[in-house]
Amino acid sequence: MIPVSPLKRIVIAGGGFGGMALAKALRNKPYQVVLIDKNNYHTFQPLLYQVATGGLEPDSIAFPLRKVFHGAENVVFRMAEIINVDFDKKNVDTTIGTIAFDFLVLATGSANNFFNNTSVAENAMTLKSVSEALNIRSLVLQNLEAALVADEKDRQALLNIVVAGAGPTGVEVAGALAELRRHVIPNDYPELKNLAINIYIVEASERVLASMSEKSSEKALLFLKKLGVIPRLNVKLDSYDGNTAVLSDGTIIPTKIVVWSAGVKGKLTGGIPESVITPGSRIEVNSFCQVKGFDSVYALGDVAMLSSKENPKGFPMVAPVAIQQADLIAKNFLRMKEGKELKAFHYFDKGSMATVGRNKAVVDLPFISFQGLFAWFAWMFVHLMSLVGFRNKLMVFINWLWSYFSYDRAVRLIIRPYKKK
Amino acid sequence: MIPVSPLKRIVIAGGGFGGMALAKALRNKPYQVVLIDKNNYHTFQPLLYQVATGGLEPDSIAFPLRKVFHGAENVVFRMAEIINVDFDKKNVDTTIGTIAFDFLVLATGSANNFFNNTSVAENAMTLKSVSEALNIRSLVLQNLEAALVADEKDRQALLNIVVAGAGPTGVEVAGALAELRRHVIPNDYPELKNLAINIYIVEASERVLASMSEKSSEKALLFLKKLGVIPRLNVKLDSYDGNTAVLSDGTIIPTKIVVWSAGVKGKLTGGIPESVITPGSRIEVNSFCQVKGFDSVYALGDVAMLSSKENPKGFPMVAPVAIQQADLIAKNFLRMKEGKELKAFHYFDKGSMATVGRNKAVVDLPFISFQGLFAWFAWMFVHLMSLVGFRNKLMVFINWLWSYFSYDRAVRLIIRPYKKK
Repeated sequence: MIPVSPLKRIVIAGGGFGGMALAKALRNKPYQVVLIDKNNYHTFQPLLYQVATGGLEPDSIAFPLRKVFHGAENVVFRMAEIINVDFDKKNVDTTIGTIAFDFLVLATGSANNFFNNTSVAENAMTLKSVSEALNIRSLVLQNLEAALVADEKDRQALLNIVVAGAGPTGVEVAGALAELRRHVIPNDYPELKNLAINIYIVEASERVLASMSEKSSEKALLFLKKLGVIPRLNVKLDSYDGNTAVLSDGTIIPTKIVVWSAGVKGKLTGGIPESVITPGSRIEVNSFCQVKGFDSVYALGDVAMLSSKENPKGFPMVAPVAIQQADLIAKNFLRMKEGKELKAFHYFDKGSMATVGRNKAVVDLPFISFQGLFAWFAWMFVHLMSLVGFRNKLMVFINWLWSYFSYDRAVRLIIRPYKKK
Repeated sequence: MIPVSPLKRIVIAGGGFGGMALAKALRNKPYQVVLIDKNNYHTFQPLLYQVATGGLEPDSIAFPLRKVFHGAENVVFRMAEIINVDFDKKNVDTTIGTIAFDFLVLATGSANNFFNNTSVAENAMTLKSVSEALNIRSLVLQNLEAALVADEKDRQALLNIVVAGAGPTGVEVAGALAELRRHVIPNDYPELKNLAINIYIVEASERVLASMSEKSSEKALLFLKKLGVIPRLNVKLDSYDGNTAVLSDGTIIPTKIVVWSAGVKGKLTGGIPESVITPGSRIEVNSFCQVKGFDSVYALGDVAMLSSKENPKGFPMVAPVAIQQADLIAKNFLRMKEGKELKAFHYFDKGSMATVGRNKAVVDLPFISFQGLFAWFAWMFVHLMSLVGFRNKLMVFINWLWSYFSYDRAVRLIIRPYKKK
């Protein structure tokens, strides 16, 4: 099933930022690399929210993994889901059969964390994959269509939207929905013009973008308010039954859509020893990203927990950590071949950014923080340059230009109507 | 559910070429127009085959219907499916309730016709909608992924593709698949390089593109052969159980994908009197496109059968007929208002065209027929200009330029894996 090779085999589980970067760094190097992902494409997750809000088509932010590895004869891609890993027998069970490894790198990323709140888990929409983003896009539009023909008593629930969690994803979704409401809905749905379409953002902590600087948080909150988003800070989403969201302060919001962006955890496969799993479902690794106690198994990125004195809670679950860890692991594999000793991971934090809307973004760099128009351009530039492939960069750039000048969100199509399971 | 209006109400069933053109022609005219479609977008069907073969994203060939009618206060769009029509009570039952009409225009288009062949109906893929096109795209790619890990005995069925029917859709699909095989598969799937990926096109008549000139048919056949498509003329697909296609001459082709483009019929709703339904499920109309015996009900395009001495079998089921009939009906509605008598339909046949691949198209105009590179440019120009909206034109144009110079089909993503029901 996997071509036989005289080289040692590195199986990489997951083609996200970390897994793809690692496989790229090992192209045409003296290892056989088997990259496994359940999709045949890499997803540029930071722009999923634009797919969910009709700004971009999914094809612009997804890139065929096979294309990344054209001409790299030592890299084998397999589209499969990993069911179980066996660190001792050194193999992984997948939907296409068992694959043996010499080295395994777990780069499975993160999953939604509902903190055992089953009503939310069952009824909220999430934004971790292209199809989840398309489901949100469909449902937002389906609700508007339904609102046109609904009885008055049912209508408000179809017009309210609750975003739970005001991290970057939550803020970006809420902002983009607010712009959709302002620029698209009045033209598309003139019959809804005089009705209140309320967008709430609910955040348990006392500020939005809590991981960023206070100044950025303040500005982001201001931007959200300017766009007419209703922020509810210091409040949690207690329950959501598909019709009514109940907040921890007792507020009741009738709504047919809750977008959950209030928690992530490591995405584990079966077979990972409990002894190395930390509370956030992340796998404990040493400073070489090796899973504690298993020299030949690595974990990186969101699913890895590398704690140190400076960083007792591990590194943030963001793409740059995964990519830098991938680069380190690749280097160490090559050093290993040369009999050199492994190098330890050091994170270079380039800063962080988030966008709320048109001309409204916030940027924290190590020594400076800025907000507004210039931050928005910086945000666009960084994201454009980070996209995989020239075609995707071009398509996203044209779409952004188009949206900027037309105030339009072109992709408001319900291609596959969302049906609740 | 529909705003009350002092104007007479025209309900248009279907937002395809005909229905959309009619509603556009009636913008800001003294009628209330209620346009109903099960999708919130218009589909540019002639390019669906490019979605099915990874050349275009669906969003480039679909256009939000609501956007077409910005500012047209007399046009109401409703996303709904029509279940039943009642010509006498003058109302239509839909998934969102019953809607009364003064005039009804049936513009429901066409459906796949399997001529009662249930094995084919159950197992073949079709290409009448965006989601069907996406299913074909997914399945073609899923089969290639599966072929990599299949046992030798199962592999050939995953690599063979059968296209049934060599009308424009069949020829275009087969040609595009052949180009995908030539330019993309060797790079994406080097492990399949030495295996035969066979693309068959099966046609019951003695030539491909039988509705076009003999010269165009000949050339199209030559183009298909040049691309390595295996044509099987004078042969029908007798059965297909999901694994094996059996042709009328006894040929057995193991295949996991059959694309059915060998038959269409009118797409009817419930409640249409049997007396006006002709054998191809089309509705008999008079020269004003009024359904025989019902002055206030019209049918146009694929679902209408307007037969005359010159045209005993009715007009071809193509977009220009639907659009010209829509224009006539709109004019007649306005003449009616002015007390003038209705005008009869006259079809202006501008010709027809089909493309097989890069630099390979055929064009029949009323007095001239040409094939090859110039025909291909003509085909592209006409299709580009016919697309709705500047953004879609731009996106398709850039994609075509990109594909032309890179030989790539960028959109080879399995966003929603196809699962057999």
